[in-house]
Amino acid sequence: MQTVQVQAPSHSYDIVIGKNILNDFNLFAPHIGKKAAIVTNTTVAQWYLQPLVKLLQNNGIDAFSIILPDGEQHKNHESLNHIYDSLLANHADRKTTLIALGGGVIGDTVGYAAATYQRGVPLIQIPTTLLSQVDSSVGGKTAINHPRGKNMIGAFYQPKLVLADLNTLATLPEREFSAGMAEVIKYALLGDVAFLAWLEQHIAAIMQKDHTLLAQMIAHCCQMKADIVAQDETEQGIRAHLNLGHTFGHAIEAQMGYGNWLHGEAVAAGMVMAAELSQQLGYIGSDEIERVKNIIRAAHLPDTPPKFSEEEWLAHMRHDKKVDEGKMRFITLKNLGAAQIETLPDVNVLKNVLSKFTA
Amino acid sequence: MQTVQVQAPSHSYDIVIGKNILNDFNLFAPHIGKKAAIVTNTTVAQWYLQPLVKLLQNNGIDAFSIILPDGEQHKNHESLNHIYDSLLANHADRKTTLIALGGGVIGDTVGYAAATYQRGVPLIQIPTTLLSQVDSSVGGKTAINHPRGKNMIGAFYQPKLVLADLNTLATLPEREFSAGMAEVIKYALLGDVAFLAWLEQHIAAIMQKDHTLLAQMIAHCCQMKADIVAQDETEQGIRAHLNLGHTFGHAIEAQMGYGNWLHGEAVAAGMVMAAELSQQLGYIGSDEIERVKNIIRAAHLPDTPPKFSEEEWLAHMRHDKKVDEGKMRFITLKNLGAAQIETLPDVNVLKNVLSKFTA
Ligand SMILES: NC(=O)c1ccc[n+]([C@@H]2O[C@H](COP(=O)([O-])OP(=O)(O)OC[C@H]3O[C@@H](n4cnc5c(N)ncnc54)[C@H](O)[C@@H]3O)[C@@H](O)[C@H]2O)c1
Ligand SMILES: NC(=O)c1ccc[n+]([C@@H]2O[C@H](COP(=O)([O-])OP(=O)(O)OC[C@H]3O[C@@H](n4cnc5c(N)ncnc54)[C@H](O)[C@@H]3O)[C@@H](O)[C@H]2O)c1
Ligand SMILES: [Zn+2]
Ligand SMILES: [Zn+2]
Repeated sequence: MQTVQVQAPSHSYDIVIGKNILNDFNLFAPHIGKKAAIVTNTTVAQWYLQPLVKLLQNNGIDAFSIILPDGEQHKNHESLNHIYDSLLANHADRKTTLIALGGGVIGDTVGYAAATYQRGVPLIQIPTTLLSQVDSSVGGKTAINHPRGKNMIGAFYQPKLVLADLNTLATLPEREFSAGMAEVIKYALLGDVAFLAWLEQHIAAIMQKDHTLLAQMIAHCCQMKADIVAQDETEQGIRAHLNLGHTFGHAIEAQMGYGNWLHGEAVAAGMVMAAELSQQLGYIGSDEIERVKNIIRAAHLPDTPPKFSEEEWLAHMRHDKKVDEGKMRFITLKNLGAAQIETLPDVNVLKNVLSKFTA
Repeated sequence: MQTVQVQAPSHSYDIVIGKNILNDFNLFAPHIGKKAAIVTNTTVAQWYLQPLVKLLQNNGIDAFSIILPDGEQHKNHESLNHIYDSLLANHADRKTTLIALGGGVIGDTVGYAAATYQRGVPLIQIPTTLLSQVDSSVGGKTAINHPRGKNMIGAFYQPKLVLADLNTLATLPEREFSAGMAEVIKYALLGDVAFLAWLEQHIAAIMQKDHTLLAQMIAHCCQMKADIVAQDETEQGIRAHLNLGHTFGHAIEAQMGYGNWLHGEAVAAGMVMAAELSQQLGYIGSDEIERVKNIIRAAHLPDTPPKFSEEEWLAHMRHDKKVDEGKMRFITLKNLGAAQIETLPDVNVLKNVLSKFTA
């Protein structure tokens, strides 16, 4: 079992990572009220809901469950209202604990419900995808989508506790596991070359879900994200490094139609493109590019994007939030393990990179 | 012009109180982005919207307006969505400033929209009722109603600036002005007997809307609320004093049908009842009761509740949030200017008080 302590502005809390921790009521006890609502989706419910309901009920908690449909398209206002209605029907008050049991979609939606129900109720996050364990459950961002845009409505809200149980990864589809690995690799590339070397050494065993290595890896990623977030609550500076590969990645997701490429897959190819851009700018060489591609391939992720026209690429990138007032800002790699925010001197540097990935 | 500085957990900000301050762009300048959405209602818009739009536009701000229907029944999810939709249609981003121009209904709704649009955008509060100037614009509570309960969905969110322009009170119906005075009297009774004496001395001129006295009075109330909130962010302790008269008041509002008695009117009668309860408990005498009734009458507020049956009274009070796990908690007056939280020893003390107001 590994524990990462996160220092949030309002309070500090633990991320506990390990095997069988969802059976251990002692972990819940200090953070749970007399009444608790477990919110999950139809997929995750199959394996993990009943054991958790029983654990809590056996320990005297008045636990009830709320089951949402599965999918990003349900990270919306209807699911939110469904949660509010169930909470009210079950007489949930300000001390009722909300438990988010699922991947990032559940985590974001339930986190937002917890932030806003009666101006905020206690929240426990139980991330069950690799992506949510290493990324979305850290940092306090919660949100739902609006028909006009992803994550448009949301709040910053910190949980009382995060429990990442490695057992849950056993049922996770391989493709989803790999998608989570893209964010893991991102942490290495943006800020920790020693961690990159560690990943390179252990990637085969990690892909086999070696529990000891997984626990170390997840804890390391949570620690890195927590440190970055703590340094930059307002999202003006270093937190932007977390977007490494994401400007290109978002273009891929949008052009392919959302859901066809998983977010992590698009980010993986996007990181290769960010590396190529860094090479264009003279920061890294082809050896470094190869290292980036190798670790991405070893995680069963795409090391190259689909081919689009230059127009298609640029159209999506102009819409990206990081393209600030006409100036194109990218996260580039000064070196492996050393990301920086960069405003491109002119669009030709970018076009040179895109030409390699143009139909 | 009076200024009260409020120390919120996230940042500190000013409440500026005075005449003609809505014409002074210098007050806005440090706190407003390039783009601003002014949200108001159809009533307030008549007098105060166009001048503000012009002021901002003349100073180079890309200002647009969002007009909601008037009334507590519109402090809901539909109004919220209307705001979100207009913000998105106008390409509002994270730097767009939301300006709440209106009473507490507008302040609460727009405050909540600002808290949640893109996880939070800058907010300026322009309270235009006395109640919102002395109460709802201080403390960072924002909320909308849910069909199952008032203020059920909300967030804590602090503005960058509050501008309370005394000129706006000229158009406020007398009944609404008096309702605001109930909260003013509440501050005096719960925590400041010198302020009570000052009110007694000046009440006639205040009811005539003497601007100098109003500015002093509003600043004093904002300062008192800000101090109480700062001492007790989690609402476990002294902040409960702000509920003086409210347990009885809520019962009156509910039994009369919401909207028939204004909140402030119900609180005024509720404070008389709280004073009677304090007398029953041996804290204050009939001279103090008379002082309470006199200041309430001088503010053109009811000093006695409608008559209900004991059953009706108790039914509403059992639903009150402050009736915690069967124990009835009330805010009582140890003395004028000295409120305390009290768990009633038994229900008979309460029934004795109710018997005076029973049909
Ligand atoms: N809040 C943040 O900081 C942040 C950061 C990154 C991503 N996100 C959000 O996270 C979401 C993506 O999260 P995700 O990748 O976890 O997607 P997801 O929640 O949709 O989960 C992916 C799929 O795996 C299923 N699943 C979850 N756990 C499982 C398990 N243990 N076994 C079998 N199946 C399981 C889910 O039901 C779903 O079908 C996006 O909405 C994104 O916006 C948020
Ligand atoms: N957030 C908090 O801490 C807090 C505290 C107390 C009350 N509240 C909330 O505040 C709301 C009540 O606020 P309110 O009493 O200001 O009610 P309100 O906003 O409904 O205003 C009362 C009436 O006066 C009109 N009005 C507003 N300004 C005017 C002006 N200058 N001239 C003429 N008419 C004007 C309004 O359109 C409305 O018809 C409730 O929803 C309550 O829950 C919130
Ligand atoms: Zn990502
Ligand atoms: Zn009140």
